[in-house]
Amino acid sequence: MKAKSRLGGQTIAMNQNPPKITSRASIVGKKEGEGPLAGYFDKILEDDLWGEKSWEKAERRMYIETAELILKKAQKEPHDINYLFGGDLLDQIITPTFAAKSLGIPYYGLYGACSSMTQTMSLGAVMVDGGYADHVLCVTSSHFCTAERQFRFPLEMGVQRPPTAQWTITGSGGVLLSSEGVGPVITHVTTGRVIDFGVKDANHMGAAMAPAAADTFRAHFEDTGRGPVDYDLIVSGDLGKYGRQITIDLLKKDGYDIESRFIDCGCEIFSEDQDVHAGASGCASSATVLAGYLLKKMEDGEFNRILIASTGAMHSTISVQQGDSIPGIAHAVSIEKRG
Amino acid sequence: MKAKSRLGGQTIAMNQNPPKITSRASIVGKKEGEGPLAGYFDKILEDDLWGEKSWEKAERRMYIETAELILKKAQKEPHDINYLFGGDLLDQIITPTFAAKSLGIPYYGLYGACSSMTQTMSLGAVMVDGGYADHVLCVTSSHFCTAERQFRFPLEMGVQRPPTAQWTITGSGGVLLSSEGVGPVITHVTTGRVIDFGVKDANHMGAAMAPAAADTFRAHFEDTGRGPVDYDLIVSGDLGKYGRQITIDLLKKDGYDIESRFIDCGCEIFSEDQDVHAGASGCASSATVLAGYLLKKMEDGEFNRILIASTGAMHSTISVQQGDSIPGIAHAVSIEKRG
Repeated sequence: MKAKSRLGGQTIAMNQNPPKITSRASIVGKKEGEGPLAGYFDKILEDDLWGEKSWEKAERRMYIETAELILKKAQKEPHDINYLFGGDLLDQIITPTFAAKSLGIPYYGLYGACSSMTQTMSLGAVMVDGGYADHVLCVTSSHFCTAERQFRFPLEMGVQRPPTAQWTITGSGGVLLSSEGVGPVITHVTTGRVIDFGVKDANHMGAAMAPAAADTFRAHFEDTGRGPVDYDLIVSGDLGKYGRQITIDLLKKDGYDIESRFIDCGCEIFSEDQDVHAGASGCASSATVLAGYLLKKMEDGEFNRILIASTGAMHSTISVQQGDSIPGIAHAVSIEKRG
Repeated sequence: MKAKSRLGGQTIAMNQNPPKITSRASIVGKKEGEGPLAGYFDKILEDDLWGEKSWEKAERRMYIETAELILKKAQKEPHDINYLFGGDLLDQIITPTFAAKSLGIPYYGLYGACSSMTQTMSLGAVMVDGGYADHVLCVTSSHFCTAERQFRFPLEMGVQRPPTAQWTITGSGGVLLSSEGVGPVITHVTTGRVIDFGVKDANHMGAAMAPAAADTFRAHFEDTGRGPVDYDLIVSGDLGKYGRQITIDLLKKDGYDIESRFIDCGCEIFSEDQDVHAGASGCASSATVLAGYLLKKMEDGEFNRILIASTGAMHSTISVQQGDSIPGIAHAVSIEKRG
């Protein structure tokens, strides 16, 4: 017994009607808009509140405007879209839920912490490839201020951050997956397992997520028979500089050398002098860098085939308070420019 | 342009390799085990902690044991299962995430509040029908004590509950969806939209969810051309007695009379004298009643075709504190006994 689109292990091939990424958009915060990728984003906020009454409402507005921008660029209306797959970091994923209410699109809420972007794309891709949808909207968001006050300390306390801490991206990014149209194609989906190396420090999430990233990349290579050289670029979501190095080291032990072609979105979006310590994090890290920078580089022909895995650290304040470690998860998708 | 398995609107047909429900299990708390459906559940807890150090850890153990029971009944091991789709009510859906870590199965975390059970089944069904999986495990959970302290008040305060309040089910339930084997078949999936009638009372969630339930049932009837008489039973997740009546009334205005064949899991699991006010709620309401009671009745030939929609109230403490209303969502699946 074998499902026809399974390669075995954790990977499935999109070989029925491979989904095309026909539109993309990204909005980022002020600090992100001062970084090296500033020119690739569609909008940059003037401040963290963006004229709203709370940071949560500002995050929601970013999410909705990102979705609307994606639709506008594709010349689509909400009623043309079969599904919205969405995620964020907030309790009860309130951002995509209220956005789904505004947009009126049939909605599946997902939670994978910062792995949400490729999680939405994995499930959205199956919907299109399998003939269940013509257009699926995949959007995620995060906000530095909403994440800090929920997971760590009130910002007003001014708690000092250790060197391994990461800076949650304020932003929202997303893509439209379509059965027809022009754009790079999603060819494979490798679904992550929850991997735990026993890290308990919420200020060292790169170390918590790296084993999951390595596990998913290894599974992808084994399942597809591909190796690092088959990709122009291998990308992780928000491992930061320490997590990136741990992932490289773990994969070397498995015989895969990815170092020369491996970037982490969380290391790319800020420059060294922006004082973010280990790098960026958040659902919006991979979402904005993919939708803004990476897909533009694919359009320009600089990369033809990339493997991207958003990476999530799976903890809650309750789980940390009750002594649980912080396991990680990473979901990978292969994206290829064709024709 | 039309995806081959779309019926249009919000509904897709499982007509490629329709998933069979080949195994099921349910575990409930002590109070649920004193109700009218007690004989249908696999295990009943002696108390809310079940020997664990916290209610959250007890919920996690229920979830893992439910998953293990489903596998045991199907004579499967975790490595036979392609995906675990899971959800619960807790911040960062920590229960299925840590269960996924224990089980080692590739994992997609979902959040749809109490609509999670049919949300997991909707996406799991697509994975099997489309040829992406041979076995998908769908499990959700909730726990009265973990939900009350997260969403409402510390239990120690003994806050009085109004008559419209519902009682979150302590339990976990789930099913195994398989490409081959014996069991009732999932034939249609109708995905819900987020619907908001402006309810702001977290102690009147039936009213918050009823418009979403009515919207999804109406969409299902319109998309499929079926009517209430085509089903032996129409089931909602946890509307409670007030929400159930509102749903009946709303659908009557649309020309659909479901009253005589419509039950709500939240109204079935407790008896009137168990003092739960408007009825039960929680992901485990539809999960345990479906996995324990309804699928047993289908096996026995009492029902041959049912339509079930788990129903979710989409709020967080932050969204309520910031003045947002509580929108609802409902995802429906049709289940049919064949042969």
